[in-house]
Amino acid sequence: MKAVVYSGAYDVAVQEVPDPRIEDPQDVIIKVTTTNICGSDLHMYEGRTNVEQGKVLGHENMGVVAEAGPAVKDFRPGDRVSVPFNVACGTCFNCTHGWTSFCTRTNPTEGVDGGAYGYASMGPYAGGQAEYLRVPFADFNLLALPQGTEYERDFTMLSDIFPTAYFGTDLAGVSPGDTVVVYGAGPVGLLAVHSAWLRGAARVFCVDMHGDRLSIAEKFGATPVSIAAGDPAEQVLDSTRGAGADCGVEAVGYQAHEPSGQERPELVLDWLVRSVRPTGRLGIIGVYMPQDPGAATQSAKDGRIGFDFGRLFQKGQALGTGQCPVKRYNEKLRDLIIAGRATPSAIVSHELPLTEAPAAYAKFDKRIDGYTKVILHPAA
Amino acid sequence: MKAVVYSGAYDVAVQEVPDPRIEDPQDVIIKVTTTNICGSDLHMYEGRTNVEQGKVLGHENMGVVAEAGPAVKDFRPGDRVSVPFNVACGTCFNCTHGWTSFCTRTNPTEGVDGGAYGYASMGPYAGGQAEYLRVPFADFNLLALPQGTEYERDFTMLSDIFPTAYFGTDLAGVSPGDTVVVYGAGPVGLLAVHSAWLRGAARVFCVDMHGDRLSIAEKFGATPVSIAAGDPAEQVLDSTRGAGADCGVEAVGYQAHEPSGQERPELVLDWLVRSVRPTGRLGIIGVYMPQDPGAATQSAKDGRIGFDFGRLFQKGQALGTGQCPVKRYNEKLRDLIIAGRATPSAIVSHELPLTEAPAAYAKFDKRIDGYTKVILHPAA
Amino acid sequence: MKAVVYSGAYDVAVQEVPDPRIEDPQDVIIKVTTTNICGSDLHMYEGRTNVEQGKVLGHENMGVVAEAGPAVKDFRPGDRVSVPFNVACGTCFNCTHGWTSFCTRTNPTEGVDGGAYGYASMGPYAGGQAEYLRVPFADFNLLALPQGTEYERDFTMLSDIFPTAYFGTDLAGVSPGDTVVVYGAGPVGLLAVHSAWLRGAARVFCVDMHGDRLSIAEKFGATPVSIAAGDPAEQVLDSTRGAGADCGVEAVGYQAHEPSGQERPELVLDWLVRSVRPTGRLGIIGVYMPQDPGAATQSAKDGRIGFDFGRLFQKGQALGTGQCPVKRYNEKLRDLIIAGRATPSAIVSHELPLTEAPAAYAKFDKRIDGYTKVILHPAA
Amino acid sequence: MKAVVYSGAYDVAVQEVPDPRIEDPQDVIIKVTTTNICGSDLHMYEGRTNVEQGKVLGHENMGVVAEAGPAVKDFRPGDRVSVPFNVACGTCFNCTHGWTSFCTRTNPTEGVDGGAYGYASMGPYAGGQAEYLRVPFADFNLLALPQGTEYERDFTMLSDIFPTAYFGTDLAGVSPGDTVVVYGAGPVGLLAVHSAWLRGAARVFCVDMHGDRLSIAEKFGATPVSIAAGDPAEQVLDSTRGAGADCGVEAVGYQAHEPSGQERPELVLDWLVRSVRPTGRLGIIGVYMPQDPGAATQSAKDGRIGFDFGRLFQKGQALGTGQCPVKRYNEKLRDLIIAGRATPSAIVSHELPLTEAPAAYAKFDKRIDGYTKVILHPAA
Repeated sequence: MKAVVYSGAYDVAVQEVPDPRIEDPQDVIIKVTTTNICGSDLHMYEGRTNVEQGKVLGHENMGVVAEAGPAVKDFRPGDRVSVPFNVACGTCFNCTHGWTSFCTRTNPTEGVDGGAYGYASMGPYAGGQAEYLRVPFADFNLLALPQGTEYERDFTMLSDIFPTAYFGTDLAGVSPGDTVVVYGAGPVGLLAVHSAWLRGAARVFCVDMHGDRLSIAEKFGATPVSIAAGDPAEQVLDSTRGAGADCGVEAVGYQAHEPSGQERPELVLDWLVRSVRPTGRLGIIGVYMPQDPGAATQSAKDGRIGFDFGRLFQKGQALGTGQCPVKRYNEKLRDLIIAGRATPSAIVSHELPLTEAPAAYAKFDKRIDGYTKVILHPAA
Repeated sequence: MKAVVYSGAYDVAVQEVPDPRIEDPQDVIIKVTTTNICGSDLHMYEGRTNVEQGKVLGHENMGVVAEAGPAVKDFRPGDRVSVPFNVACGTCFNCTHGWTSFCTRTNPTEGVDGGAYGYASMGPYAGGQAEYLRVPFADFNLLALPQGTEYERDFTMLSDIFPTAYFGTDLAGVSPGDTVVVYGAGPVGLLAVHSAWLRGAARVFCVDMHGDRLSIAEKFGATPVSIAAGDPAEQVLDSTRGAGADCGVEAVGYQAHEPSGQERPELVLDWLVRSVRPTGRLGIIGVYMPQDPGAATQSAKDGRIGFDFGRLFQKGQALGTGQCPVKRYNEKLRDLIIAGRATPSAIVSHELPLTEAPAAYAKFDKRIDGYTKVILHPAA
Repeated sequence: MKAVVYSGAYDVAVQEVPDPRIEDPQDVIIKVTTTNICGSDLHMYEGRTNVEQGKVLGHENMGVVAEAGPAVKDFRPGDRVSVPFNVACGTCFNCTHGWTSFCTRTNPTEGVDGGAYGYASMGPYAGGQAEYLRVPFADFNLLALPQGTEYERDFTMLSDIFPTAYFGTDLAGVSPGDTVVVYGAGPVGLLAVHSAWLRGAARVFCVDMHGDRLSIAEKFGATPVSIAAGDPAEQVLDSTRGAGADCGVEAVGYQAHEPSGQERPELVLDWLVRSVRPTGRLGIIGVYMPQDPGAATQSAKDGRIGFDFGRLFQKGQALGTGQCPVKRYNEKLRDLIIAGRATPSAIVSHELPLTEAPAAYAKFDKRIDGYTKVILHPAA
Repeated sequence: MKAVVYSGAYDVAVQEVPDPRIEDPQDVIIKVTTTNICGSDLHMYEGRTNVEQGKVLGHENMGVVAEAGPAVKDFRPGDRVSVPFNVACGTCFNCTHGWTSFCTRTNPTEGVDGGAYGYASMGPYAGGQAEYLRVPFADFNLLALPQGTEYERDFTMLSDIFPTAYFGTDLAGVSPGDTVVVYGAGPVGLLAVHSAWLRGAARVFCVDMHGDRLSIAEKFGATPVSIAAGDPAEQVLDSTRGAGADCGVEAVGYQAHEPSGQERPELVLDWLVRSVRPTGRLGIIGVYMPQDPGAATQSAKDGRIGFDFGRLFQKGQALGTGQCPVKRYNEKLRDLIIAGRATPSAIVSHELPLTEAPAAYAKFDKRIDGYTKVILHPAA
C-alpha cells in the first residue's frame, strides 16, 4: 500500500510499504478514509526526535473496517470508525481508571506515556497516513460512527485535537457562565475555544500573535487578544474589570516564543497565571517535555520551566496537564457533531490526496500559503 | 492587656497594649485561652517581611467570647470558639464560593490574599498572642466548640495548621486505599500524615532530613523516608515497586534546601513529581511567594521556581495550591476530634504562659531544645 | 404603597398597605421594577394552603435599591438587583454549605425549608408584588445587575424559575453531549430545556400533554413528545434506539394527572424512570409535599408516592430533589444573559401593570387566554 | 468436580458436575479456594426465583488460576485472584463508564442488569460454590492478590459484599467527619459501618431489630439503635440534637418488615428519610425489584414502594441505588486489607468445607445457630 514515511529531517515520502495484517485476534484493519497532519508531526519532520527512518506517520485517523480479528465483537467490515491516537489495552490500571493516554501496556519504548500510532518514542505502531492501518484492542479503542460519508471532516477531528482541546477546558473546569482565556489560536486553541462554548462559557478570549489566526478565532466566537497590541494578561484583566478569567487553557507549549522569535518557554505560563483570577483553574495541553535538547538554556533542555510559581501559589490556582485520554471524550463529542452543535471542521485549511503529503508537510512547517490544518484522503 | 508585639528583627516583646473593642456590630471580642506560634511567624521574626513595629502577632487563636456586637446572632459571652486565621467577610465572591482565604474585602493591603490576624501584608488585624482578640464578621468566622476545657490542645490546631494540612490532602485527592507521600515532617507535614489517614489512606510516606522529626512521623503511622539515606523519590519508587505514590503533599515551601544548607527552591517539587505516579495529584501547601528578596538567585527572587515542569506534564499530573480556606474544613475536623478519631495535639512540643513568648520565639527560630510547636496560654 | 394581597380562596386584591422599612441594619428596601406570578402562587390562590389573609404575595422579584441599612456594604440606592426567592442568613450550616433554600434561621414557621417572600409557611416575609420590598441580609442575598433597563424581562427570571430549572439539570447531571428528557412544558420545564442546552446537551426531549406548550418547547429547540400520541417513555426509548435518555428532569410535581384529569402523582416519576437509561440521573424539581390534604388517595394525602422504585433500583438510577438554592446559580446565569447566550424571557406570555394582577391570577389559574407566565410592573 | 447445585425450593445438593473449560481465549479457569453463601442466594433457595434446576450456585468467589486462555495477558497459573460477582465485558458503554454491574453484553437474560455467576436471570454463568470456576474476560474482571494464603478470609469479601457495602457509603457521600446511619446489621450493613469508618466518619449509627446483630455492630464501632426500643428515626434525631445524620445507608431491601413480621417494604425508607438531615444523601443498596410476586400488596408486587417521597423532596435529599460495580472499589479495598486497615472477615460466622453447604444453607435460611456469614472451602 501507499504510505507517508519518515525519511530524515525535512524529508517525508509517499512510498509503497507492506499492508498491515491482523497480528492479534483483537486487531482490526481499517481502510483509512481521512487522516490529518498534526502540529506535533512537525517535531518529527524537523528532525528533533529519535523517530526511526521508514516509520509510517500519522496518528489522527479514521476510516472503514476492512478486516476484524476473530476476537473482535463490536465491529465488522464496512463499519465506519474513528481511531483515537492513543493505543490502549483497556485492562491496565490507567486504562480502567479512564487514562488511556497512560496505558502501561502498549508503550514498551518509554513506559510513561501510553502508545500512539506513527510517533517517536510511543511504541512500534505504524501510522495512518496510509491506505490501511492496524488497530490493536479494537473493541476498546474504536469509536463507532454512523455509516456513510456525512460529517467526515468533523469526525476526523475526533481522533486527537478535538478531544485534546476539550480536555484542556475540562482540566480548566470550564462551566456554564464562565469567562475563559485560551492561549494559542492554532488548531487546538481554536477547538478549545469551540469546546469552551460547548461547555457553556459566557465569554471566551483567545490570545495569539498572528492576525490571521486571530481572525479565525473571531469566527469561532472568541474575543481576539493580540500580543502585538501589548501584554495579553493586561488586556484580559482590563476586559474583565481587573478580575481575570475564571479558567485558562494553554495551547502553545514549550516552544513559546516572543514576537521577536526568542524562545521563552515560561512566557505563556506567566501570562496565563496573571490573566486568570485567584482560585481559578488552568488546563495545560500545550506540550512540555522532560528533555528538550534544542532548547535555548540548560534549564529548558532539562525540562525546567522557570515560570512564576510563586504567583500561582499566591493566587491559589490549580492546574492539570498531560496527553489527552481521547476515549474519555470522543463519544460525546461525536454526538454533538451529529446533533449539529459542534463543527470542528471549521479549522480545516486544506483537503488533499495522500500523494500531496510531502508538499503539505513542507508548507505547513513553514506556515505558508495558509496551511494550518491539512486533512489527507488516501483513496482520493 | 498583655500582648506579644513585633519590635524588630529577632525581637518580640510582651507589652501592655490597649484592649481591643467592638468596632462593628458584627464583631466579637474573645478572651484568648490558647494561641500558637506558627512557623510562618518566624518569617516576620527574622525580619524578612514589612510587618510594622508594634504589631500584635498571632493568627492561631481560640478562646471564649467576652463580648458580642449587637448584630451577632449565634455567639454569646461565655461561648467557646475557634478563630480561623482567615478574616473573611462571608459575602464577597470568593467567600460565597468557599474560598475564605481569598476574601476580596478584608485585605486592603494586597488585594490577592484575604485578611489574617497579626500578619504582614494581610490587613490591619491585631493578632491573638494576647489576652483579647477582636474578630470581625463573627457569625461567619467563628467555629462553635463544646463548653469546657476538654480537647483544648487539639482544638487549638483548628485555627490553621490542621485545616491547612487537611487541605493539602484534599488538593492531592487522597481517597480510601491510596498511597500518599508527604514532604516535610514539620507540624503541617505531620498533620498532613494524620489527615491522610483520616481520609482512608492505605500507606503514608513522610520525607524529611531530620531524624527526630521522622521519629514523630513514625508515631503518626507514617513510613519515614530519610533524605540522609539517599534520593527520597527513589526510595518511594522502590517501596511501591516502581509505581510511585497515588498522591503527594508538599509541606516544605520555597525555603527548601539541601542537607548542606544550600537553598534549592525547586528541590522538593522535583522529588514530588518523580515520586508520584503518572496522573496522580499534588497538593502544594508549603508556601511559595511572588517575591522573595532573600532568595539565592534572581529567578527565585522573582518567584520563579524552575522545577521539572516537563516531567510533570509528561506524567499528566495535576496540582493545587494556595492558602487554606479554614472554614471549609474546621467544622468536620472538630467533629473528628470530639469523636476521638483525630488528635492533632500530638505535635505539641511546649505549652507555656504568654510571658514566655520571647524566649519561645528565639528557641523555635533556632530549632533548639525540641521547639517544634508551641502553644501559649495568656491567662496562665 | 400598592400591593397584591391574599384575601381568601380565589381572591387577591390590589390594596394600600404600609410601606416596608429597614428593620435590621443589614436590610435593604428595593423599589420593585418587575415581579412575576409563579405557578406555585396558584396553590395559595386556590385556597389550598394556610396562608394568612392580608399577606402580600410574590416571591419572584427584582428592582432598584431605594434604601440600604447602615450595615449594608455592597449596595447603594439606585443599584439594580435581582432578589432570590430564598430568604437566607448566610451564616448557618446550610447557607455556608451552599443550600440557601434550607436556611435554618429564616423560617421559624417550619424549620425545614428556609424562608421565602410572600409564601405560606415560609416565614413572615411580605412578597414583592408591590411597589416596595424589604430584603433581609442584603449583602448575602442580593444579586447585582448592570444599571439600566436592558434585559429586564430576562433578569426577572433569575429570582426563581431560571435557577430552579437549571438546578434540575444540575441534579440530573446534564453534561456536554448528553441526551436529556424533560417532563413538563410549563415555564420551569421550558427553562429546563433551555438550561440543558446551556450545559451542552446534544438532544433534548420535552414531554407534555398540551399541544400549545409543546409548540413553545419546539421553539426552545426541544423534540416535542406528546402524551396524546401514546406512552411518552416508549416514544423516548424509540427515539434513542432503546437506550433511553442519559438524564431526566421532572418539572411537573405531585399534581400530575392523566389526560382524563385523574390525579396520578406517581405517573410522571414512572415515565421518567422508564425513559432514562440504567445508571442515569434524575432531577426532581416538580414539587412533592409531605402532606397534601387535597390528594385523591390516603397514601398521597400522606406524601406517599407509590412509583416504581423497584425499577429505579434495578436500573441503578440516582435522583436529587428539593427547593432550589438560587444563589448557587443566579450569578452565572446572569452572565449568560448578558453574554447573549441565555434568553429566558422567551417564556413570558403577558406583561402587565400591578393593578391587573387580580385578573391575571384568575386567567392564569384557569389557563385561559394563553396565560402561562405573567410579569407585573408596579410602576407602570 | 464437586459443586453446589440448585435442585428445587429448599433443596441444594453437592453433586458431581463437568469441569468448566476455556471457552474463549480471554477465559481463565480458577481453582476455587474460598466461596461464600450470600443472603441473596436464599432468594433462590427459597424458590422465589426462576433459577433453573442444576444451576451451580455461588457468586462470591476467589481462588488460584488453574488455566489461562491464550489471549489472557496478566494472569498465569498459580496467580491468586478475587472474582467480582459481576461478569463484565470491559468494552461496552457501561463497562467503559465504570458501571460493570450494568454490562450490556454479558446478560442476554434480561438486558438491564449485567451478568453474574450462579444467579437467576443474570446469564448462563455457573457459580463458584464448586472446585473450579470459569471466568470470562479475565484480564478485565480478575483482581490480583498477593500470593499465599494470608488474608484469605478478608479477601473473600472483595467479590461482593465489601465493595457493595462501600458502594452504599459512596452513594451516600460519606466524607471525613460525617455522621452516618446504616439500616440493617446483616453482613452488608456491618461492612457499611466498616466502610463508613474507612471513609472517615465521625459517628456511625447502626439500626436493627435483633440484639445479637446489634452486638456485632457495636464491635464494629457503631452506636447500636434497636428498633425494639422505639422508632429508630427518633432515636437518631435525639442523639444528634435533632439534626439527623449527614448520610444514610439502606442495607435491608424490599423484604423490610415490622418486628411483628408484617412485610412493610416502605418502612426502612421512611425511617431513612426521617433520620437523615435536609440535603443529606442516601445510599440504597438493599435490593428492590420491579416485580415481587411474593409481596403482600398488589402495589408491592409491581415494585411500587409507597414511601414518603413528599418528605424526601421537602428535605431536598438525594439518593443513589443499584447493584454494585465491584471493580470500581475492590482494588483500593484490597490495599486497605493488606495495609491492615480493613478487616471485613470480622463478619464470618462459619468456615466449612463445600460438602457442608446443604446444611449451611438450611441453617442460614432459618437464621439459627448464629449462621450469618458462611465461607466454604472446596478443597477442604
